[in-house]
Amino acid sequence: MKKKNIAILGSTGSVGTQALEVISAQPDHFNVIALTAENNADLLIAQAIKFLPKSVVIGNESLFRQVSVALKPYSIDVMCGSNALSEIVQLPEIDLVLAAVMGFAGLKPVVAAIKAGKHIAIANKEPLVVAGELIMAEVIKHKVSILPVDSEHSAIFQCLAGERYEDIEKIYITASGGPFFGRDKASLQHVTPAHALKHPNWSMGNKITIDSASLMNKGLEAIEAKWLFNLQPKQIDIIVHPQSIVHSLVQFSDGSLKAQLGLPDMKLPIHYAFHFPERQSTDFKRFNFLDYPELNFHKPDLSVFQNLSLAYEALYQGGIMPCVLNAANEVAVAAFLSEKIAFLEMSDVISEAMTNANQIENPSLEDYFEIDNWSRDHARSYITNRTKHAGYHPIS
Amino acid sequence: MKKKNIAILGSTGSVGTQALEVISAQPDHFNVIALTAENNADLLIAQAIKFLPKSVVIGNESLFRQVSVALKPYSIDVMCGSNALSEIVQLPEIDLVLAAVMGFAGLKPVVAAIKAGKHIAIANKEPLVVAGELIMAEVIKHKVSILPVDSEHSAIFQCLAGERYEDIEKIYITASGGPFFGRDKASLQHVTPAHALKHPNWSMGNKITIDSASLMNKGLEAIEAKWLFNLQPKQIDIIVHPQSIVHSLVQFSDGSLKAQLGLPDMKLPIHYAFHFPERQSTDFKRFNFLDYPELNFHKPDLSVFQNLSLAYEALYQGGIMPCVLNAANEVAVAAFLSEKIAFLEMSDVISEAMTNANQIENPSLEDYFEIDNWSRDHARSYITNRTKHAGYHPIS
Repeated sequence: MKKKNIAILGSTGSVGTQALEVISAQPDHFNVIALTAENNADLLIAQAIKFLPKSVVIGNESLFRQVSVALKPYSIDVMCGSNALSEIVQLPEIDLVLAAVMGFAGLKPVVAAIKAGKHIAIANKEPLVVAGELIMAEVIKHKVSILPVDSEHSAIFQCLAGERYEDIEKIYITASGGPFFGRDKASLQHVTPAHALKHPNWSMGNKITIDSASLMNKGLEAIEAKWLFNLQPKQIDIIVHPQSIVHSLVQFSDGSLKAQLGLPDMKLPIHYAFHFPERQSTDFKRFNFLDYPELNFHKPDLSVFQNLSLAYEALYQGGIMPCVLNAANEVAVAAFLSEKIAFLEMSDVISEAMTNANQIENPSLEDYFEIDNWSRDHARSYITNRTKHAGYHPIS
Repeated sequence: MKKKNIAILGSTGSVGTQALEVISAQPDHFNVIALTAENNADLLIAQAIKFLPKSVVIGNESLFRQVSVALKPYSIDVMCGSNALSEIVQLPEIDLVLAAVMGFAGLKPVVAAIKAGKHIAIANKEPLVVAGELIMAEVIKHKVSILPVDSEHSAIFQCLAGERYEDIEKIYITASGGPFFGRDKASLQHVTPAHALKHPNWSMGNKITIDSASLMNKGLEAIEAKWLFNLQPKQIDIIVHPQSIVHSLVQFSDGSLKAQLGLPDMKLPIHYAFHFPERQSTDFKRFNFLDYPELNFHKPDLSVFQNLSLAYEALYQGGIMPCVLNAANEVAVAAFLSEKIAFLEMSDVISEAMTNANQIENPSLEDYFEIDNWSRDHARSYITNRTKHAGYHPIS
């Protein structure tokens, strides 16, 4: 059996470390060709010594020396700097790139990997959210597969095995509802980052956990789904399912629905993407109905979770609007985490950026970078002005 | 587009009439070549005049003249008698045979259809329950498809689209639980046929409705699933799901589960089987999560529903035992419906037949007919002896 040669962008993050667990469990199936990290030099070094990739990237240049010295005895190439990710994905040995870096930074390397003919396992939402049209055009042009690693998109992808995409009537993306499910607006005015970081079912990074609490995460997933599965916005629905067992559903043109279910465990979608198009057995803990005698489903409350409404507005508007939304949201989340703005104020920051953005027809990759910068600047100055006048206060 | 040429065995029953509704809705896709009924001559005549098949069969010979006279102006061949079903399925025009007759009577025509190279849409449980090994060998030999029309097996079949059967770890067949879900044995001692015929979700014939109330239906479905999906008995599980929305599930070797869901409506599995391998759009009522905010799952209570235990015993024993079980059950259900025995006594009738049956290695089609007769006779005399001594009384 030919081993799959894998590059992991973001190997020290939550998805990256779980991806290496998946690889460790079936070493006969995979070679690790490249690992990359932004700041966690110690873990990157330990991973490199264990998996012996050909190359590693440490994003933060001030850590380059530390990593180089540590990996010298193992003849592992060490790279750093802003273009290193886009270079490393082009290594000829690589079959599949797992994009698990955080945020907008994943866009350039994903595009570079696709252009180099690599299959992509995509955990990093932003490239598709921001530039889905452009990415899917490259995917088709270079005949590569783009394999979702989010549990929701993996669920939809699994439900579509053996089906035609044109037979999709609609999809339901499930949402746990996050820690604030069922709350009204008044009760969310004074929630702190510590409250918002307590996710009921999933253990994830801080940014995505806040996005789960605000339901922005589902909005970004809806935008991502539009591109991955070639859907119209009206075909995408969000349903709150507090147990996080049904990971998402597809409704077909005959009215039949298919769902993918399982315990909340990111290793399964990673494992599925890595082994695709085959399934391989695992010893992951199995779901048992007797532990979940009740599964619940609710409509999300858009009057409380306005970030989800804003994301749908961006989804319908298309063009650069998802890019504006995403950039303003990243700034807003950071401001909330550092307690500069209140939880509900995040929506004001995003809404303000979207209202002031100018739509562009057929945006290029450069346009997206420009818009991303503009939106961040706009969001930052809005926050600065606001907090200058008002201090830290919730908006009613 | 080439139309599919369809024969419907049992066109006046619950599945048969719904199949004709499916065909009516998309007349460009189908020709009706043959229709058959046992006793309902009036409806058969009306169906034949509407769909103009080449041939019809009326099982009850005393109705032959009535049907012949009525259909003479339409140049429709009319056949009758015990071999007519096995003959009609061999008409060269037929592509697909829907087997929707009741009980054991479906076995011979299904085997004849497979041998004539026809694809089978199977709603009639007994052929696979009784003689699954023999039928699947013929299916493979004659390279035909056997397409499940039961909602549960259709669900599993849909979940297996694009998947390898060898990747199935287990299946969950869902059960509504019937009208007696949650009841204890004591409370079932005096239930009448009228109680048992009140199914909460599905409208079906009397025999299958009683089997739903006793959970025998799920036992028969487990046996059917073993053959349809090439499973070991231990890979088949039953889970009670009172809402009948999740129609069944498949758990794969990686731990991932897929489910098929929808409103309880037999037209969907019929439609799926008729159009397979494609999906075609329908205007069937769509499922809406907001109407079902809660889906529940429970372990079936085998101490109360002993018919299900008996069916699993037959599933594990294999050979002729499912045939013994099925025949004794048909007799027991008829005796319960005519108030000769109590609801819980049905299990005694079946258990007694199974205990006294002699296993046969590699049974032939003739063996099954003999065993079927033996089991019915045995069950009948057991009931006669019992009721002679005890009258109509529930067993504690």
